[in-house]
Amino acid sequence: MTDIGIGIVGGGYMGKAHAVAYAAVGAVFETTLRPRLEMVCATSEASADRYRAAFGFARATSDWQALVADPKVDAVIIASPQSTHRAIAEAAFALGKPVFCEKPLGRDVADSQAMVAAAEASGAVNMTGFNYVRTPATQEAIRLVREGAIGDITWYRGEHTEDFLADPDAPATWRCQGRETGTMGDLSPHPINCALALMGPITSLNAVVETVHKTRPGPDGPVQVTNDDHAQMMVRFASGVMGHIYASRTATGKKMGYAYEIHGTRGSIRFDGEDQNSLHVYRAEGPEAGRGFTRVLTGPAHPNYAAFCQGPGHGTGYQDQIIIEARDFLAAIEAGQSAFPTFRDGMEVNRVVDAAWTSSETRAWVDL
Amino acid sequence: MTDIGIGIVGGGYMGKAHAVAYAAVGAVFETTLRPRLEMVCATSEASADRYRAAFGFARATSDWQALVADPKVDAVIIASPQSTHRAIAEAAFALGKPVFCEKPLGRDVADSQAMVAAAEASGAVNMTGFNYVRTPATQEAIRLVREGAIGDITWYRGEHTEDFLADPDAPATWRCQGRETGTMGDLSPHPINCALALMGPITSLNAVVETVHKTRPGPDGPVQVTNDDHAQMMVRFASGVMGHIYASRTATGKKMGYAYEIHGTRGSIRFDGEDQNSLHVYRAEGPEAGRGFTRVLTGPAHPNYAAFCQGPGHGTGYQDQIIIEARDFLAAIEAGQSAFPTFRDGMEVNRVVDAAWTSSETRAWVDL
Amino acid sequence: MTDIGIGIVGGGYMGKAHAVAYAAVGAVFETTLRPRLEMVCATSEASADRYRAAFGFARATSDWQALVADPKVDAVIIASPQSTHRAIAEAAFALGKPVFCEKPLGRDVADSQAMVAAAEASGAVNMTGFNYVRTPATQEAIRLVREGAIGDITWYRGEHTEDFLADPDAPATWRCQGRETGTMGDLSPHPINCALALMGPITSLNAVVETVHKTRPGPDGPVQVTNDDHAQMMVRFASGVMGHIYASRTATGKKMGYAYEIHGTRGSIRFDGEDQNSLHVYRAEGPEAGRGFTRVLTGPAHPNYAAFCQGPGHGTGYQDQIIIEARDFLAAIEAGQSAFPTFRDGMEVNRVVDAAWTSSETRAWVDL
Amino acid sequence: MTDIGIGIVGGGYMGKAHAVAYAAVGAVFETTLRPRLEMVCATSEASADRYRAAFGFARATSDWQALVADPKVDAVIIASPQSTHRAIAEAAFALGKPVFCEKPLGRDVADSQAMVAAAEASGAVNMTGFNYVRTPATQEAIRLVREGAIGDITWYRGEHTEDFLADPDAPATWRCQGRETGTMGDLSPHPINCALALMGPITSLNAVVETVHKTRPGPDGPVQVTNDDHAQMMVRFASGVMGHIYASRTATGKKMGYAYEIHGTRGSIRFDGEDQNSLHVYRAEGPEAGRGFTRVLTGPAHPNYAAFCQGPGHGTGYQDQIIIEARDFLAAIEAGQSAFPTFRDGMEVNRVVDAAWTSSETRAWVDL
Ligand SMILES: NC(=O)C1=CN([C@@H]2O[C@H](COP(=O)(O)OP(=O)(O)OC[C@H]3O[C@@H](n4cnc5c(N)ncnc54)[C@H](O)[C@@H]3O)[C@@H](O)[C@H]2O)C=CC1
Ligand SMILES: NC(=O)C1=CN([C@@H]2O[C@H](COP(=O)(O)OP(=O)(O)OC[C@H]3O[C@@H](n4cnc5c(N)ncnc54)[C@H](O)[C@@H]3O)[C@@H](O)[C@H]2O)C=CC1
Ligand SMILES: NC(=O)C1=CN([C@@H]2O[C@H](COP(=O)(O)OP(=O)(O)OC[C@H]3O[C@@H](n4cnc5c(N)ncnc54)[C@H](O)[C@@H]3O)[C@@H](O)[C@H]2O)C=CC1
Ligand SMILES: NC(=O)C1=CN([C@@H]2O[C@H](COP(=O)(O)OP(=O)(O)OC[C@H]3O[C@@H](n4cnc5c(N)ncnc54)[C@H](O)[C@@H]3O)[C@@H](O)[C@H]2O)C=CC1
Repeated sequence: MTDIGIGIVGGGYMGKAHAVAYAAVGAVFETTLRPRLEMVCATSEASADRYRAAFGFARATSDWQALVADPKVDAVIIASPQSTHRAIAEAAFALGKPVFCEKPLGRDVADSQAMVAAAEASGAVNMTGFNYVRTPATQEAIRLVREGAIGDITWYRGEHTEDFLADPDAPATWRCQGRETGTMGDLSPHPINCALALMGPITSLNAVVETVHKTRPGPDGPVQVTNDDHAQMMVRFASGVMGHIYASRTATGKKMGYAYEIHGTRGSIRFDGEDQNSLHVYRAEGPEAGRGFTRVLTGPAHPNYAAFCQGPGHGTGYQDQIIIEARDFLAAIEAGQSAFPTFRDGMEVNRVVDAAWTSSETRAWVDL
Repeated sequence: MTDIGIGIVGGGYMGKAHAVAYAAVGAVFETTLRPRLEMVCATSEASADRYRAAFGFARATSDWQALVADPKVDAVIIASPQSTHRAIAEAAFALGKPVFCEKPLGRDVADSQAMVAAAEASGAVNMTGFNYVRTPATQEAIRLVREGAIGDITWYRGEHTEDFLADPDAPATWRCQGRETGTMGDLSPHPINCALALMGPITSLNAVVETVHKTRPGPDGPVQVTNDDHAQMMVRFASGVMGHIYASRTATGKKMGYAYEIHGTRGSIRFDGEDQNSLHVYRAEGPEAGRGFTRVLTGPAHPNYAAFCQGPGHGTGYQDQIIIEARDFLAAIEAGQSAFPTFRDGMEVNRVVDAAWTSSETRAWVDL
Repeated sequence: MTDIGIGIVGGGYMGKAHAVAYAAVGAVFETTLRPRLEMVCATSEASADRYRAAFGFARATSDWQALVADPKVDAVIIASPQSTHRAIAEAAFALGKPVFCEKPLGRDVADSQAMVAAAEASGAVNMTGFNYVRTPATQEAIRLVREGAIGDITWYRGEHTEDFLADPDAPATWRCQGRETGTMGDLSPHPINCALALMGPITSLNAVVETVHKTRPGPDGPVQVTNDDHAQMMVRFASGVMGHIYASRTATGKKMGYAYEIHGTRGSIRFDGEDQNSLHVYRAEGPEAGRGFTRVLTGPAHPNYAAFCQGPGHGTGYQDQIIIEARDFLAAIEAGQSAFPTFRDGMEVNRVVDAAWTSSETRAWVDL
Repeated sequence: MTDIGIGIVGGGYMGKAHAVAYAAVGAVFETTLRPRLEMVCATSEASADRYRAAFGFARATSDWQALVADPKVDAVIIASPQSTHRAIAEAAFALGKPVFCEKPLGRDVADSQAMVAAAEASGAVNMTGFNYVRTPATQEAIRLVREGAIGDITWYRGEHTEDFLADPDAPATWRCQGRETGTMGDLSPHPINCALALMGPITSLNAVVETVHKTRPGPDGPVQVTNDDHAQMMVRFASGVMGHIYASRTATGKKMGYAYEIHGTRGSIRFDGEDQNSLHVYRAEGPEAGRGFTRVLTGPAHPNYAAFCQGPGHGTGYQDQIIIEARDFLAAIEAGQSAFPTFRDGMEVNRVVDAAWTSSETRAWVDL
């Protein structure tokens, strides 16, 4: 076992999640590389220091360049807003350090291309933070699709729906301004990444991106919402299969609507993030009278599960996804080999997002 | 109570369903008009006579014109293939008889326009056979949407998926030839009608219609499939709301995938035909800790239920939908007033189907 | 096909259900015996005549003896209160007429024994009205258990829960007086019959029968409730298997809680009457990673379904259960051979109810 | 923030779970007391050292007495077999150290009484490891019951079912010998603790405890199974409410069948550990047409959730339950005040288990 110094930029929602993950991952997965919470960075010295104490880091800073450059920081986790991702990643790669970057990789394709170029030039291990694809259930779904368990795929439908802005009277916040924090920018990368993971590349699409609530209450009257609330797209995968993807932040009642269904010639698969510990699988085999969707509860027989519990059906949760992610990043570093989703995979998501905007604006199919 | 002589053209899948419905509807709903199973028509005298005996009709014929013209036939039910609908309906309307016609109304818009014209010229009561919209759950959903229970609608997603041609090795049959028996022609009318019932008119759409399995085994080798297996469309309703509709006969594992979800500013509704006795309703009210989708089991408190059973949750089934339909047709005749879905409503469905084909062929948005 | 004259005693909840069933059964199942709704009986001439007209009977009477004796009444359906079952059945058997009697067979074991004796002396076909056991799903469950699909049974749990008296402020009615209308008398026969159908005879039990709300509001203040609200029993089947049965009319939120789960050495089965069109089956076979409960939607591949619809998953409902029952009674008459549940099977249920009361009073195990 | 040295006895299933929990809990809950993984103990030096390295402890030992006595071990976690619990706890209490002991507290009531006596004599903080009661959903259920949200309780049904010994051909292991490792000894404490947490004390019960598979294959032929496979009990709570509890290790298909349902005069609650992130709540209020069970997804509005994720419905898992437990134990130490379930609460469970055995042997009700 070898010590590895972890530096995390950001101590908010995801900064904390990664801090906990790196505190726990060694014991959970008995990794060869053992993380040391070396340094945390936040916008102010005060907040950085608060995160240091709260999460158990050795040191804190408000200067991400200091963190990146610190000799005791062996790997960099970027958990700050998308506008900051590129510069931080480029700096880390310049020093040859492995980088894990939260989704979406860059604000746009240009950002991401630069980041991929930097990553590939440096040869350092890189990974994008699409945690939802790492649940035991979705890893099992990927395995089933790959091994042909449901035959040739004929249809894919994916979505990610939440309702944090479903109420039209919810006040305007920073979330209501700027493409990169709208639904296409912020939420859709998850279901797009999911589709790519399960189905491979998208070659063309036709999308509608839309702002449902055009204004929201501000302190001095209605404020214009400048980004999108929900978006749908009809897609064509490189495999020839047709699909549909939907993302929404106005999906009243949905809390973790990361869901997909896949039809194949010999079976079907259904997953719903609101019941992340099960996968519904239909197999077109055996007598008709016995067929139906089987609710498979995840357990030690499925990917990424056994380290959390020897008992099947005992369940993993959101935080465990981040622990799995940490394990995979550490394993990649150890192997000197980036793993899905690499920065390149992250960039692919940006390309799809970009194409969707173009399609929505031109009301036409767009090739990728 | 008055006797009414019923003539049914067709004694197959739906002919039987309507025969049973008219045998039972009087006792179930204690209707004023009491149906008498007067005459059934099928392609041969032999089969017609078999249906007569099996379903309890007084007389049989292989000539639908005889049935339509028969003085003891007071109302005509068309349950024969779509190619026959128009001529039969026109003949019946010429005699001023009320007509119930199975979906889809005509083979295409031209057929349906002629049928609407004939219906409206005659002034006779007319109705199209979209039974799925008549379940207590969906009637309740319509009621909730209309009364604003879930606020302003922001998104609609509907589908109708089955898997009777999911197996690529299923042999080519008549179902694999001819637009009107493909998925757009035959299945999609149900979810389109459902969308229109819940959401009102569609004003534009963008569709992809597709044949998944291009050939199927025939007696002398592979046979070309000349119609479509599945289709999706992005739609815009007259209300301004965006939606999506999907229909498939290759949806492995789906048996009665007539399903929809509707998001509104104050709530959401979800329905799945594979559990037709419940409606899932979310209301964005009360403390956050108590919110969630409520599975409402249908009962006497909901439309169309009480006549079947005084106990809630005891359940209605497919055949009951047809009985409800019969009740509504009889009530319309009694009132001299056609009810949803009239022939005009049926024609609207054909128009959407037509537009979807055009859109798919031109790869462009089509206005209706 | 032969005509058979049906006489129904009672035109209430179940009288209507049977009237509809006999109106529809011929067309649905294409039965050899074709029912004619000959006569209906109710307490007053007026109500009997109302039922006649409403349900389509030829004649009405307020004298059940007249109905039983009428030469055009070939078979008698008893759908009047339990206190009337015995006398009507005895009179019908004396004339050698087949009798279908609603559950519970008699008010008590004595009643039922007399009825069984009369039935067996006459040699006439007899049947008890336990409709819930006739759903396609439960018939499939019985088939699976019998053919050993889930191996040797190791545990059975059944219940029937509703909530029509869950509200302590619901006023006292006739339902709150008299053992035969309490939960043990009125509701528990269903889950007991279900247990017997799936598992065979019960040989001993230990029960608690209880009145939850001891008084209820009456017009002049609180009224004593003299029967029971809910009851549980631990049972031992003749097969040696242990089980548990629960019945309640105070199960807040439950509308059709007719449910069971059965564990076997090679699989398990689960059913819930609030989703009567599916059966959940687990098979302990194949790789662990693929195991889980399969939700099998009933369809033409299952018992009693195909006559209602050629499409799987399209669903049957409460009224259809009564139609199936009518088919089975007609088939039994035609065959001259009573079918499960015969009067003897109905009496077995009374014996279990009786033993439960004794057990509850003595707080001890009771052998049957 | 203060450092606290943690010593864990046992490095198996639960030893690991607690090691991970204490590694993560500080960052998750930002606890005042910050755990230091000081020492782990296992049967051999080799295994202890392996656990040390794997989980990140500072030191290892094969002598639990050394661990307990070590000055840097400030709190003792007992995660070794039940036979060892008493001696370790007594030794730790003798030194005034706080003790967390895995369930079941002692092998039997005698053990537990001694442990309670030792705990109370020392005044040290003590806690028993019933983790399942700590999920956000079950904590919310407890809150709802306490605040009267479902009115007066009228019925309770709880169970814990798994299937790890459902296969009769599974070979005999140590699990098949000795009461404390049978279903009553090992599994039933969970659902009993759950019932006590939700409903308060049990005052009498009537149980059947049973070995389903009397022998199992051993290396030299069939081996006698000397403990029980499943058990049921009818219970009476001090509140007067009647209930039922079932535990099984032969419940084919069940993986995490920790489930309960509670009926009250104004609502009902249902929970199933196979979907631990939701609670089903029925409220008997509002119009009948809107009533039903609401599936409430746990989120920041519920107990114990927010520290894991700011987003509702994102889910917690098994390991998170142990982290919550660690938080609660640390908080108790900080407050100098033991929290539910204390050793006394753990002993109550042993008393119920004991009474169940007596009842099963005497086939009679037993008072507690
Ligand atoms: N994978 C997932 O499920 C989720 C991913 N995210 C992604 O994680 C990233 C962070 O989002 P949140 O944690 O929600 O944000 P947050 O607002 O909760 O936290 C952002 C953190 O970044 C720090 N920060 C901001 N600018 C900085 C700068 N210039 N230098 C150093 N530190 C800076 C802030 O001090 C703060 O600690 C985003 O890229 C977001 O898209 C966010 C939520 C969920
Ligand atoms: N609402 C629903 O759920 C469904 C609606 N349908 C619709 O019902 C209609 C009938 O379909 P199915 O019952 O499935 O067909 P089917 O093939 O089972 O039966 C067709 C019947 O029409 C008779 N027929 C055919 N040509 C005739 C003619 N020229 N003159 C007189 N009788 C003729 C045949 O003898 C046969 O009895 C179609 O329009 C179909 O789209 C079908 C299935 C389900
Ligand atoms: N299988 C099932 O799911 C159900 C079975 N039942 C059973 O059906 C039977 C009838 O119950 P409901 O229909 O609910 O009762 P109900 O009160 O709705 O109807 C009773 C009918 O019997 C008639 N009746 C009463 N006394 C009579 C007499 N002496 N002579 C002639 N007619 C008489 C009444 O006029 C009335 O028409 C009972 O045995 C009950 O246990 C009731 C409900 C559900
Ligand atoms: N709360 C829950 O969900 C669960 C609780 N448990 C409980 O946890 C406890 C431990 O069970 P498992 O972890 O499953 O057992 P295990 O067999 O996986 O691990 C037992 C550990 O205790 C150590 N040990 C045994 N005897 C010892 C001794 N005399 N001195 C020092 N170390 C010794 C062993 O070396 C081993 O590391 C039991 O009381 C069990 O009932 C077990 C599983 C689940």
